[in-house]
Amino acid sequence: MDRFEDRLRLRVRYSETDQMGSFYNSRALEWFECGRSEIMRKLGLPYAEMEARGCFLPLVEAHVVYQGRARYDDLLEVTTRVAFEGRAKLRCDETIVHAESRLPVASGYTIHAFTSRDGKPQRPPAWFLEAVEQKLRNRPPADDSETKVET
Amino acid sequence: MDRFEDRLRLRVRYSETDQMGSFYNSRALEWFECGRSEIMRKLGLPYAEMEARGCFLPLVEAHVVYQGRARYDDLLEVTTRVAFEGRAKLRCDETIVHAESRLPVASGYTIHAFTSRDGKPQRPPAWFLEAVEQKLRNRPPADDSETKVET
Amino acid sequence: MDRFEDRLRLRVRYSETDQMGSFYNSRALEWFECGRSEIMRKLGLPYAEMEARGCFLPLVEAHVVYQGRARYDDLLEVTTRVAFEGRAKLRCDETIVHAESRLPVASGYTIHAFTSRDGKPQRPPAWFLEAVEQKLRNRPPADDSETKVET
Amino acid sequence: MDRFEDRLRLRVRYSETDQMGSFYNSRALEWFECGRSEIMRKLGLPYAEMEARGCFLPLVEAHVVYQGRARYDDLLEVTTRVAFEGRAKLRCDETIVHAESRLPVASGYTIHAFTSRDGKPQRPPAWFLEAVEQKLRNRPPADDSETKVET
Repeated sequence: MDRFEDRLRLRVRYSETDQMGSFYNSRALEWFECGRSEIMRKLGLPYAEMEARGCFLPLVEAHVVYQGRARYDDLLEVTTRVAFEGRAKLRCDETIVHAESRLPVASGYTIHAFTSRDGKPQRPPAWFLEAVEQKLRNRPPADDSETKVET
Repeated sequence: MDRFEDRLRLRVRYSETDQMGSFYNSRALEWFECGRSEIMRKLGLPYAEMEARGCFLPLVEAHVVYQGRARYDDLLEVTTRVAFEGRAKLRCDETIVHAESRLPVASGYTIHAFTSRDGKPQRPPAWFLEAVEQKLRNRPPADDSETKVET
Repeated sequence: MDRFEDRLRLRVRYSETDQMGSFYNSRALEWFECGRSEIMRKLGLPYAEMEARGCFLPLVEAHVVYQGRARYDDLLEVTTRVAFEGRAKLRCDETIVHAESRLPVASGYTIHAFTSRDGKPQRPPAWFLEAVEQKLRNRPPADDSETKVET
Repeated sequence: MDRFEDRLRLRVRYSETDQMGSFYNSRALEWFECGRSEIMRKLGLPYAEMEARGCFLPLVEAHVVYQGRARYDDLLEVTTRVAFEGRAKLRCDETIVHAESRLPVASGYTIHAFTSRDGKPQRPPAWFLEAVEQKLRNRPPADDSETKVET
């Protein structure tokens, strides 16, 4: 996994707004999580299965830059890129834009440790590394099609 | 436990507002939960300990009547009454008012099953019934002091 | 609008789980809201536009029956039916099931008042009633196709 | 306002947990907000009043480092320090620890712009600067009492 990218669309829920009329700031981290869920599925490693196999990916760091408003019912596009951060951590870079206008909403990253169920740090499991390696092998050489969205 | 009552104060968080300028509707259920946490502690049965002993109280039903607005930073008072609903369920009745003006915000109830960790229905454990019974025994005869708040 | 029905699919987010391993109880009200947003769009009355025109639909009552667990990443289907409750209120009936197994997750209803921006009750606006009436007129006589989902 | 500090205690709500058994990551930003609300009140500038006077403080950046678990019902202490970031932004530094054990939970910062109601950047209002200056003047010279919690 030198770098994987995936895109997801979602609408701002009413529950995600606040009285300032835009989305409440912590929702950005929840939308980042939606992006991560999708990209792990595309990698063939749905996170629900990872936890079922005893591999957890809690956050150790998060950063968000707020770039623009997004109102209730606005259609947003979340782009997620995932890569290793050293040998024992994952880093997800996220960008959220308005799906139509491409105006920026927020961007940032989250860094994740590999841990056991009780929170103890562990190395990325062999099956995780193999699945990622296989995914990269099966990717055609100059192919960057999975980083494109239907346009 | 014919009936127990407790009161709790909390401030509306900015994260709990929505673009209508009042609290988002689902927050009422979250504030009901805060009330339940406190009353279980007063009963000598902190819910965290109950779960640690394998006794879970998931909701089977919830009802909310919305009576008035509450804005960011408003100080609210949550009153919780807990009683058995039949032999195997708990019922919590909740009232939320503005702490100063006493204007109503929301009221309702939640009904809870007793289950094991994996969600299977079970009878209320003996230690739960004993703790409740003891609490009632230790209550002075005509005492309704626990239903009063410091005023 | 004697009765309108619409369906929506969504996945349980990690942020919507709690330590019991299923979804946190108040999320049901947030998913009901997603269902309402979609059905209003199908009615040609996106709720964002309604608010922009000064017509608000705050909750006056909510009821939820919890029927089964739903775990992180489970695919759910929310069915929403909307109808008038008397002349000045809307009632939405909601059912949430697992999209594949059809096992029930939660069902309930919400009742909504028509109000101005500052929360004062008002009659449903003429343009709202006209839009609904027109929608019904344009519906083929014995057609219930829009209430069916691909099965 | 070279630097102001305040402390606040809160309990982890059940709604704030996730299936990993600790708090869901975005809650840290919500707790940071609780800390900001309290420190603005102590500064004599309750944020609700600031918005009522047309002065908004949306986030432009947020950073969180996750340092340890916190479970349902754990009592946490949020320490907030606020200072100017340049002439037109506020910076809040936040630390969350377990109130009893002092074990770290999370730390980070948020940076806020001064804007009008419609999100346009503006200079910090004169009344804001005066209130802060007066607060600093009334502070005894070598006083660090505001960094202490009432014990």
